Amino acid sequence: MPEDQEVHRGLEGVIVAETKIGFVDGQNGRLVYRGYDIETLVNNSTYEETSYLLINGNLPDRAKLSGYLAELKTRRKVPGKVLDFIDDYAGTSHPMSDLRSALSVLGSMDKDTVMPNLEKQKSMGIDVIARTPVLVAAIKRKWEGKKIVEPSEDLGFSANFLYMSNGSKPTKEQEKVMDTCLILHADHGSNASTFSSLVTISTLSDIYSAVTSGIATLKGPLHGGANELALETIKKVGSPDNAEKVIGDMLARKEKVMGFGHRVYKVYDPRARILKEFARSITKKSGKDNLFATAEAMEKAMINKVGGKGVFPNVDFYSGMVYESLGFQDNIFTPIFAVSRASGWIARSLEYLADNRLFRPKAKYTGETGPREYIPLDKR
Amino acid sequence: MPEDQEVHRGLEGVIVAETKIGFVDGQNGRLVYRGYDIETLVNNSTYEETSYLLINGNLPDRAKLSGYLAELKTRRKVPGKVLDFIDDYAGTSHPMSDLRSALSVLGSMDKDTVMPNLEKQKSMGIDVIARTPVLVAAIKRKWEGKKIVEPSEDLGFSANFLYMSNGSKPTKEQEKVMDTCLILHADHGSNASTFSSLVTISTLSDIYSAVTSGIATLKGPLHGGANELALETIKKVGSPDNAEKVIGDMLARKEKVMGFGHRVYKVYDPRARILKEFARSITKKSGKDNLFATAEAMEKAMINKVGGKGVFPNVDFYSGMVYESLGFQDNIFTPIFAVSRASGWIARSLEYLADNRLFRPKAKYTGETGPREYIPLDKR
Repeated sequence: MPEDQEVHRGLEGVIVAETKIGFVDGQNGRLVYRGYDIETLVNNSTYEETSYLLINGNLPDRAKLSGYLAELKTRRKVPGKVLDFIDDYAGTSHPMSDLRSALSVLGSMDKDTVMPNLEKQKSMGIDVIARTPVLVAAIKRKWEGKKIVEPSEDLGFSANFLYMSNGSKPTKEQEKVMDTCLILHADHGSNASTFSSLVTISTLSDIYSAVTSGIATLKGPLHGGANELALETIKKVGSPDNAEKVIGDMLARKEKVMGFGHRVYKVYDPRARILKEFARSITKKSGKDNLFATAEAMEKAMINKVGGKGVFPNVDFYSGMVYESLGFQDNIFTPIFAVSRASGWIARSLEYLADNRLFRPKAKYTGETGPREYIPLDKR
Repeated sequence: MPEDQEVHRGLEGVIVAETKIGFVDGQNGRLVYRGYDIETLVNNSTYEETSYLLINGNLPDRAKLSGYLAELKTRRKVPGKVLDFIDDYAGTSHPMSDLRSALSVLGSMDKDTVMPNLEKQKSMGIDVIARTPVLVAAIKRKWEGKKIVEPSEDLGFSANFLYMSNGSKPTKEQEKVMDTCLILHADHGSNASTFSSLVTISTLSDIYSAVTSGIATLKGPLHGGANELALETIKKVGSPDNAEKVIGDMLARKEKVMGFGHRVYKVYDPRARILKEFARSITKKSGKDNLFATAEAMEKAMINKVGGKGVFPNVDFYSGMVYESLGFQDNIFTPIFAVSRASGWIARSLEYLADNRLFRPKAKYTGETGPREYIPLDKR
């Protein structure tokens, strides 16, 4: 047969689309959004501006930024029925299941999701970016048995997210740390959740559907759950003194040490480098110095032993303790990831739609070709 | 660079997995589930048995079939909160948005969806197969402003689906036609919605998430919506006498005639061949003979003009009028598709999980590589 019969497991190395949005330079440890290094954006920009950049391709001028910020603030007003839904239904299974449902319900309330044009798709996208933090904060409160906090109109995106999550205004440092986390996680190549958004949008479905798929996919522990597990491991190690022995034992048993290594980065994950310094400071403020010191000792032990093989801490290793310091319990870590990654899902879905092609791959059939004869029930 | 730099648009021709579940032989017009030709299953089997076959690989013996049927009946009892949800929230946007939400909510009610083992995943799958018709029937009733009908414990899968949808027991013929439609749509290669289920499950997410992605993807008009549009076209043509002229005009304007042609089938779609005869009979019973006669005249005109190029009616061309004859309004056609395809999504997700590999393809970056310098807001 003339056709390529190779099974591309996991689609590793297979290029599925062109993009101008972002790229991961795993050899040089660069993460780039629209040409800007991630450090540049963390040092100068905000999550709002970064999401604008990802979607539109360039940083906004003052008028455009004002318009975008106003839009994001207005959209914070989530329909009451959606918050009622969270109040009635969340808190049973997992916050990511709750978020998948809540986001889908948000889409079910929109009367105009059948064959939307590109402008309408974009409008839905802004809606999702503005409202996902409201949903996540409400889900967090519900899991804690606390009352849902309405958004503030005065606060920026990250400060408002923390305010709704914790019921009190954050410090400037807390706000900056949250904002940094959101910038760092906004886009990262064609990972599984982003790719599932593209597959969904490629049937000309709508942005709510694409983001629902993204959340459904991010829920899996091979994708979104790593920081939860990394923090658990750090807590088990317990103190810096134990790090070298525990790491040595784990490696001897060939156990995977969560929070280390990455399919793409062969050098230090640039997001981890940035986040580590924020983690150092914020854990100190929240009295979790020991957690940070333990992590740093684990990092040292790992780099000594396997750094030569290109295994370094990734962003998940430090993000868990940061979120915990900001007041989040561990099952909310992945929903925070979704708050941020919404920008990447949406930017890439809109880009894909502009030159759409339905995804319709092939499977290699290795089963019986038949035709098998139908044996009646009594003769089986 | 040594790597393949080709962009595989839509992943056309790219093999993403091995499967023993089903294959589409587009050259010979065969659709095969586990070695059985689709005609064999329509003539001898039921949807329940077919779904068992897809998931388990062989037809069940009497004991296994009884167990499976009992399981499907027991699971029809959907948690009251999920039906309340449909009653409160459905009816605004599109039934597919409602179904996406309702199925996700069903998953949100399950306490045990975090890192489920394969047995639990399969149990969730049976749950979804049994309950999706209950959700779809409830959504249909809600859109009609009618009271939701509780499932019957006496009826088979398809009869019960029609009973819940219409509030009265179907005739034997209606039941057989519904069952045939469900068998015909249960699996069809690695189409976009099935593929999105695989991408979602590949992160070790759960079956509810995988099916939610499938529904989100099926919602798009390039995938699930074709029969709605085909029926609309047939109604516009209006009578057999107009068929030749209208088809001629459409082809002259190079318009796509919905319900004809298929990316995979280059001969007559075997599903269309089967369904056409059922459509002939059921439209007669429901006083829609003119619809069928018009469709048949359109088919004749199309085959005369473009049959030589391999363009024939596909399953969507006749399914719309069948569903309408069974009492469904057109925006419920795609949800019916989901009721059936749930089996394919679940069978293939379970098969994929047994030898899982995370989907993590690549995108080709064609944007600015930078590093771009950050220009302060005032200087932009």
